Amino acid sequence: MTLNPQYLQIGETFVKQYYAIFDGDRTGREKLANFYHAEFSLMSFEGVQVQGAVQIMEKIKALTFQKIARVITTVDCQPMFDGGVLINVLGQLKMDEEKPHGFHQTFALKPLEGSFFVQHDLFRLALHHLPA
Amino acid sequence: MTLNPQYLQIGETFVKQYYAIFDGDRTGREKLANFYHAEFSLMSFEGVQVQGAVQIMEKIKALTFQKIARVITTVDCQPMFDGGVLINVLGQLKMDEEKPHGFHQTFALKPLEGSFFVQHDLFRLALHHLPA
Repeated sequence: MTLNPQYLQIGETFVKQYYAIFDGDRTGREKLANFYHAEFSLMSFEGVQVQGAVQIMEKIKALTFQKIARVITTVDCQPMFDGGVLINVLGQLKMDEEKPHGFHQTFALKPLEGSFFVQHDLFRLALHHLPA
Repeated sequence: MTLNPQYLQIGETFVKQYYAIFDGDRTGREKLANFYHAEFSLMSFEGVQVQGAVQIMEKIKALTFQKIARVITTVDCQPMFDGGVLINVLGQLKMDEEKPHGFHQTFALKPLEGSFFVQHDLFRLALHHLPA
């Protein structure tokens, strides 16, 4: 078991890089494929689960918004016992002219050959039904 | 690498059990210690990170609310490649007479001797600063 002492920097750098590409122009989103493994990446997107970079990119490319505004509220990182990094992101986003939504996204980064790939990616918009 | 085909049932059962104890009477919360490992459990609670069941339980026991109402909106589960389960919970909670807050919590369950413990636990209240 190897905890990576650089986990915080790795996690925060990843979050910046990932959303810079995701929120950039639509054609550039293809580059997100580099973050995923052909086989060993799992994505849950609004409850729909897909595996592998090809299926994950199909899911991402099917998103129809033209522009997205995002505010990151918090990024929490934990070192994983395989040298990876677990990342929780909480924030808000606004797609095109829709109203803003809260979102949360969890990434588990797995070390591979001196770098990392996204082994787990779970995304949910937060729709609020407050308790009485 | 072993994906557990029962991951969904394991994750959903855990969530029910965990919050039933957490949201029950305050003295009963001591039982949450059984979900954590003496050494290999990490918790991030509102950005404060602690390790091991003793420190985690100190954090939980320091919570001062008497009663809590919780609504679970979504539970997303993914199988992990070590046989564990990654769980994302999104919901709302209300402590005593405070106003309701959104929250999200991520658990990574790790298999050990025929059962599971919580290896990672990340909790955040959702405070909303919507993008302009």
